[in-house]
Amino acid sequence: MAPTTISEIHRLEGQEAHLRGWVYNTRSSGKLQFILVRDGSGVIQAVASLKNVGEELFQELGRLTQESSLEVWGMVKADPRAPGGFELSITRAKIVQIAQEYPISPKEHGIEFLLDHRHLWLRSSLQHAILRVRAEVIRSAREYLDDHGFLNMDTPILTPAACEGTTTLFQVEYFEEFSFLTQSGQLYNEATAAAFGKVYSFGPTFRAEKSKTRRHLTEFWMLEPEVAYAGLNDIMELEEKLIEHIVGRVLERRAEELKRLERDTSKLEKVKAPFPRLHYADAVKRLNEKGVDFQWGGDFGAPDEAVLTEDYETPFFVHRFPSQIKAFYMEPDPADPKHCLSVDCLAPEGYGEIVGGGQRIADYDLLLERIREHKLPEEAFEWYLDLRRYGSVPHSGFGIGVERTTAWLCGIEHVRECIPFPRTIYRMKP
Amino acid sequence: MAPTTISEIHRLEGQEAHLRGWVYNTRSSGKLQFILVRDGSGVIQAVASLKNVGEELFQELGRLTQESSLEVWGMVKADPRAPGGFELSITRAKIVQIAQEYPISPKEHGIEFLLDHRHLWLRSSLQHAILRVRAEVIRSAREYLDDHGFLNMDTPILTPAACEGTTTLFQVEYFEEFSFLTQSGQLYNEATAAAFGKVYSFGPTFRAEKSKTRRHLTEFWMLEPEVAYAGLNDIMELEEKLIEHIVGRVLERRAEELKRLERDTSKLEKVKAPFPRLHYADAVKRLNEKGVDFQWGGDFGAPDEAVLTEDYETPFFVHRFPSQIKAFYMEPDPADPKHCLSVDCLAPEGYGEIVGGGQRIADYDLLLERIREHKLPEEAFEWYLDLRRYGSVPHSGFGIGVERTTAWLCGIEHVRECIPFPRTIYRMKP
Repeated sequence: MAPTTISEIHRLEGQEAHLRGWVYNTRSSGKLQFILVRDGSGVIQAVASLKNVGEELFQELGRLTQESSLEVWGMVKADPRAPGGFELSITRAKIVQIAQEYPISPKEHGIEFLLDHRHLWLRSSLQHAILRVRAEVIRSAREYLDDHGFLNMDTPILTPAACEGTTTLFQVEYFEEFSFLTQSGQLYNEATAAAFGKVYSFGPTFRAEKSKTRRHLTEFWMLEPEVAYAGLNDIMELEEKLIEHIVGRVLERRAEELKRLERDTSKLEKVKAPFPRLHYADAVKRLNEKGVDFQWGGDFGAPDEAVLTEDYETPFFVHRFPSQIKAFYMEPDPADPKHCLSVDCLAPEGYGEIVGGGQRIADYDLLLERIREHKLPEEAFEWYLDLRRYGSVPHSGFGIGVERTTAWLCGIEHVRECIPFPRTIYRMKP
Repeated sequence: MAPTTISEIHRLEGQEAHLRGWVYNTRSSGKLQFILVRDGSGVIQAVASLKNVGEELFQELGRLTQESSLEVWGMVKADPRAPGGFELSITRAKIVQIAQEYPISPKEHGIEFLLDHRHLWLRSSLQHAILRVRAEVIRSAREYLDDHGFLNMDTPILTPAACEGTTTLFQVEYFEEFSFLTQSGQLYNEATAAAFGKVYSFGPTFRAEKSKTRRHLTEFWMLEPEVAYAGLNDIMELEEKLIEHIVGRVLERRAEELKRLERDTSKLEKVKAPFPRLHYADAVKRLNEKGVDFQWGGDFGAPDEAVLTEDYETPFFVHRFPSQIKAFYMEPDPADPKHCLSVDCLAPEGYGEIVGGGQRIADYDLLLERIREHKLPEEAFEWYLDLRRYGSVPHSGFGIGVERTTAWLCGIEHVRECIPFPRTIYRMKP
């Protein structure tokens, strides 16, 4: 009999099944033992009765500890009271390994202890749910872009120059030279968009930020679409449709996980394009009206963003930030050049920024001027300037942070639980 | 009228279309100008006649240089002689930018020149074809795994310890400490496989190898599935089915690109599971029979692999390498512990290794012994040993190299053309 998985067990109702997994929990009651078995695809209650399995196996099963590994064979029975709707009546079992005393028990553990044991903590039911949502965010986003004419072009991780400012770079010894870990694939995406029209990169990005907030990781994953001949409005439309698609897929394919996370899904069901759009200057006014001391020209901190999200039930855009607080490549707003054609997308319920993007400068002279103003090494940007020498076109793009999006969808506080092995200023282990 | 793309233009036969792109080539013949327009999705011939567009626009179009950017409007006509089957009869045009003299002309350029101009070289027709095949390799592989119960779990790039040997590590300054760029996601995949059953990681991996062969990049992308309760045979079956799926999808969705690359697709059509399986010891005999001086215990170099591929028309497996030349975590073959349960998959036509994998040691004591034998820092592997303390199970996995697979499918010589921005010992620019 070929082994099956718990997620597929409904196909074998009334028949025998063979499962391979780990012990999630056990309890016994006289001549019955109840073993919660997990196999990565789900959890099922397997029941051993002394009568069915015999004295020897019954004794052996009594030795099972949390996270012991085992194979079980048994009859699949529908049971509406069981989690998942099915139960396994054990006929045979093979213990693979009796686990040593498992460090993570149902009692409360401190966060540092859990992060030190991240390789095991991943087995817990809530972490399971979060990371399955994360995988669906990635899958659905790629699916949307692949189906809409975008080409996946991976951008380099080892780069010779900075993209998002020079203070947060990780330096790598590269043979006799130095290299830096990428902060964003954007500059390279601009080159591939000029070659392929509509592209996206998806990969890890790095910021040596000393921020210790719940929204910061030093290593995080970003999906970055870039579109030739697209302006600010085009890119906002793409963003809202992409986010609507991601949320729809997560609601559809991860309903069970959201339930386990006790997520109020009625809030996610409201996420439909188009999203509200707020000019930066109006956002500043709004903050002041709400009693926040904030001046034109500043960048929003997490608390400011949280206040802005009070007025919205869906993600919304804040567009046209002051040029002075945005990257050198942002196209000035022709209607008001103090502002640039940039846009952040803020998630509701206090989550704040999950996407940043905008229209890039297309004009050679202006871009060169900005590179000089920002005191960037001109030579390292020669190739980037080439994109404005040879068939420059208006173009725009954005980067959506996978972990921040996952945190919002799961309704959890901290991005460190939204990636399998988080890296922060104090942690690069395990 | 909403702009369309060249790949979608067949929908507008007999109607007017609006395209936005770049000039690939021009020629004129008296009162006609022929402009090959590319937009990233394809190439179309646009024809301007003096009669239709008038003197002023006709003159202006005469100034177009290679890679100038423009928008054109015109009537879509079916033309069986045209590449792509359609032609555009220009009614209106707007020049976005006249490009400076483009450095890449149809004449021959040296490879270093082309790599220095990689950001522009990407626009050429052959590079286009290769990178579209690459994107399909990634898409089809993820699709196969997503549809077969695998969960995408990203593994960290910044790691505290070595996985594939300590001599080829890139070192990163991590605040006050040091970190290393990952060489493989495998060790972490073993943790996530114990949590989720069937997982895969997909991301960049790094080897500071001084090898200057056509098969080496310092930064390359790897897809790494890992399966709990899987043995060597299971993993070979997964590999061959995955590769069959990838090849099938590339043949189906990238037929035009393979044609442009002049790839002999009849060779790819033969790629059907199951693949032939050759024991390492038999491979050594085979080499000796063919006059290659090769001793048991050595690792195959590219020339040895090329000789082995002579006998096969499809990819094939070489399994059970000597333990002494494989990584510390390889499970010994119980039938013959000098060999281990490792397997490489070699692509035919001289390409050689595209996948490496095997069964991992499940036993705590043996793994600890191997860690000590290899003089690895025991403390850094404590978490990895935990996987053998708490519910250890047999498990196996492999890593498939995206660029090597792409090179084979495209029938091209060097992996450096199989990634948007290649990194080698002498190159991390642009």
